[in-house]
Amino acid sequence: MKDQDLRELVVEIAKKAKEASFKLAKLSSEEKNAVLRKVAQKLRERKEELKRINAQEVEEALAQGQSKAFIDRLSLSDKVIEGMAKGLEEVAALPDPVGEIVKMWKRPNGLLVGKMRIPLGVIAIIYESRPNVTMDAAGLCFKSGNSTILRGGKEALKSNLALGEIFRETLKEFNFPPEAVQVLPTPDRRAMEYLLELEDYIDLVIPRGGEGLIRFVTEKSKIPVIKHYKGVCHVYVDEEADLEMAKTIAINAKCQRPGVCNAMETLLVHEKIAPIFLPQIAEEYKKYEVELRGCSETLKYLPWAKRATEEDWYAEYLDLILAVKVVRDLDEAIAHISKYGSNHTEAIVTQNYYKALRFLKEVDASLVLVNASTRFNDGGELGLGAEIGISTTKIHAYGPMGLEELTTTKFIAFGNGQIRT
Amino acid sequence: MKDQDLRELVVEIAKKAKEASFKLAKLSSEEKNAVLRKVAQKLRERKEELKRINAQEVEEALAQGQSKAFIDRLSLSDKVIEGMAKGLEEVAALPDPVGEIVKMWKRPNGLLVGKMRIPLGVIAIIYESRPNVTMDAAGLCFKSGNSTILRGGKEALKSNLALGEIFRETLKEFNFPPEAVQVLPTPDRRAMEYLLELEDYIDLVIPRGGEGLIRFVTEKSKIPVIKHYKGVCHVYVDEEADLEMAKTIAINAKCQRPGVCNAMETLLVHEKIAPIFLPQIAEEYKKYEVELRGCSETLKYLPWAKRATEEDWYAEYLDLILAVKVVRDLDEAIAHISKYGSNHTEAIVTQNYYKALRFLKEVDASLVLVNASTRFNDGGELGLGAEIGISTTKIHAYGPMGLEELTTTKFIAFGNGQIRT
Repeated sequence: MKDQDLRELVVEIAKKAKEASFKLAKLSSEEKNAVLRKVAQKLRERKEELKRINAQEVEEALAQGQSKAFIDRLSLSDKVIEGMAKGLEEVAALPDPVGEIVKMWKRPNGLLVGKMRIPLGVIAIIYESRPNVTMDAAGLCFKSGNSTILRGGKEALKSNLALGEIFRETLKEFNFPPEAVQVLPTPDRRAMEYLLELEDYIDLVIPRGGEGLIRFVTEKSKIPVIKHYKGVCHVYVDEEADLEMAKTIAINAKCQRPGVCNAMETLLVHEKIAPIFLPQIAEEYKKYEVELRGCSETLKYLPWAKRATEEDWYAEYLDLILAVKVVRDLDEAIAHISKYGSNHTEAIVTQNYYKALRFLKEVDASLVLVNASTRFNDGGELGLGAEIGISTTKIHAYGPMGLEELTTTKFIAFGNGQIRT
Repeated sequence: MKDQDLRELVVEIAKKAKEASFKLAKLSSEEKNAVLRKVAQKLRERKEELKRINAQEVEEALAQGQSKAFIDRLSLSDKVIEGMAKGLEEVAALPDPVGEIVKMWKRPNGLLVGKMRIPLGVIAIIYESRPNVTMDAAGLCFKSGNSTILRGGKEALKSNLALGEIFRETLKEFNFPPEAVQVLPTPDRRAMEYLLELEDYIDLVIPRGGEGLIRFVTEKSKIPVIKHYKGVCHVYVDEEADLEMAKTIAINAKCQRPGVCNAMETLLVHEKIAPIFLPQIAEEYKKYEVELRGCSETLKYLPWAKRATEEDWYAEYLDLILAVKVVRDLDEAIAHISKYGSNHTEAIVTQNYYKALRFLKEVDASLVLVNASTRFNDGGELGLGAEIGISTTKIHAYGPMGLEELTTTKFIAFGNGQIRT
């Protein structure tokens, strides 16, 4: 397609998304929930058709020699489709943030001032070849009253278009604007670039995926971007830790699901307890076949472990590999996290009240925990309901983004003739 | 200066600002307030020196033929300096948002989860030749625990540097990092461009000034930008308005201070009351020498008024000029605001409960008022204390930005050994 035509196509999509967003903002919670439940029902009814379309794409990806992990993420199995349908029903069951009065106060002149939650408008989601993200993202954005423009990886384009079509069809049946959910119909990278320029129509861009994708989007976008970067998460085991608890948390944080962003990547251990704790925890890690990479102090107690290099402290392994460092005290632990951490999730295990509070206050991460596993950094686990991702950007939302984080607040004021003097 | 050297200079400034921000985040409210009060005291003590430096710049600006308004904004008079000092003392007296626990809840597994307010980190302020902004912005950012990098208009560079120096000197006396407040020491536009690329060191950019400046910053910045665009504000006088109240509000919104962003620019009047209301309000506007530009319907009642063109509906006059349009009903009023408004401040005057609520809900602006003047869209007037500006961006903050809006929240969790299963 010619540059000019492609640009016009993208502008048209964004314009229509904006127009649809005005109507979306006025829908009642009941109307939105009915749509979400109907889309879930249709997903189940059209399962075979979706699987057929997806199977073609999986075949092409296999022919291209894509990795097993890639194929896993691309595939729409019965389980994945049921997961999307259930996800939409769960979002329907969550409270609607739109219209909520966050707070209200009275001014000396009698003016009642408050803040009311409203949708952001149009949200663009840029992601990899994971069709389930299409439905999850569209569902959350719709419930929070926002139009969505979805741009997934090119290998999943047909699956994404088919999923989008189900949502759009349902919207039409309800007489709501189908342009509330649009899948960018071309894999052309230029189309994404044009999209990222349309600050007058799109209010927020959320890139989800690898660092390369996120850097690209940040670089090109004139629209505000909320990043979901990597998680280099630490657990610091203090000298005053309950060592049994520390072991349970350190195993859970590393081994319960190593491939996700809130898994621990580096274990920090106070030098006073290192001689006892390290051999014990190392025994446990052996059972899970975790490869340990230690600092020179660690190697004193675990001579068989690999030696960690500078790069290991920055690494997000997403695998059964763990960097281990012995630190002098809480100060060194906090300094290490500040230097090598990624502002994602950080935990301390201690029985000392003051150290717990200092760690909570001084560590800069989207979630800081005392005596609990890093794996809790998740919208569901923290009680937000479903999430669209975990922001490591401090602007607008820091941490898991649920429905509330997809809204903003406007000021409202009830007067009885007040003027400014 | 060579490109490379200039870039290094800017990177160095941003890096130091980031380092300083870690220390700033730990200061107590008392420490921060003491600094602010000391800077205020020094501003008064060094008044003559500041005025001398500023007088040179005013002279140069006059020689360049700058407008009276420009010179006004550039000038550091006794009154402006006292205003800055008082402003800092007022900020010192405001509650410190840092460390505040916004909310806290308990999860079924016993984990106590909450949100704690923390500084954003480093904030860059890009503004025009108004030295008072230097102190106001630095004071608000400092109190909220953020480092500031200030880049004002080149005509005010020496004044800004002198003001920045007073802040830095004070920080040194308290043994706090002086890099918490830095004025970009060069008027070179390239330096600003380099600054806007440093997303790893700078967390937020706030441009304050004309549309050109804001577009430029948005275009160039890889860092999140919160815009403070123009205000095309409306007052809609409904057929069920108390006409005396409507008159008072319409006069106040237009005439109390016409040169500011929350002044009314277009008056919308319901057709049923137009024949009575328009001649009455026109009489009042005559006293203030307001030029009226009306739609054809308006001209029926005010035949002497100018005819409004399409451009008038978009205009931010910032002057004693007012566009006037007669509308059929509330729907047309809302549609007009949606098309021509700038999401800044919108008001309805009505005695009808349902229309009031509909206007509040459906109008998309950073402040929507019922029966009160648009002039209340101001941090002080709404009860936030001092403000750094009024955001018309929906991301992060929408409306006046006070101390709270210069912070973010991180999640915190108190556990007693919780792991994820």
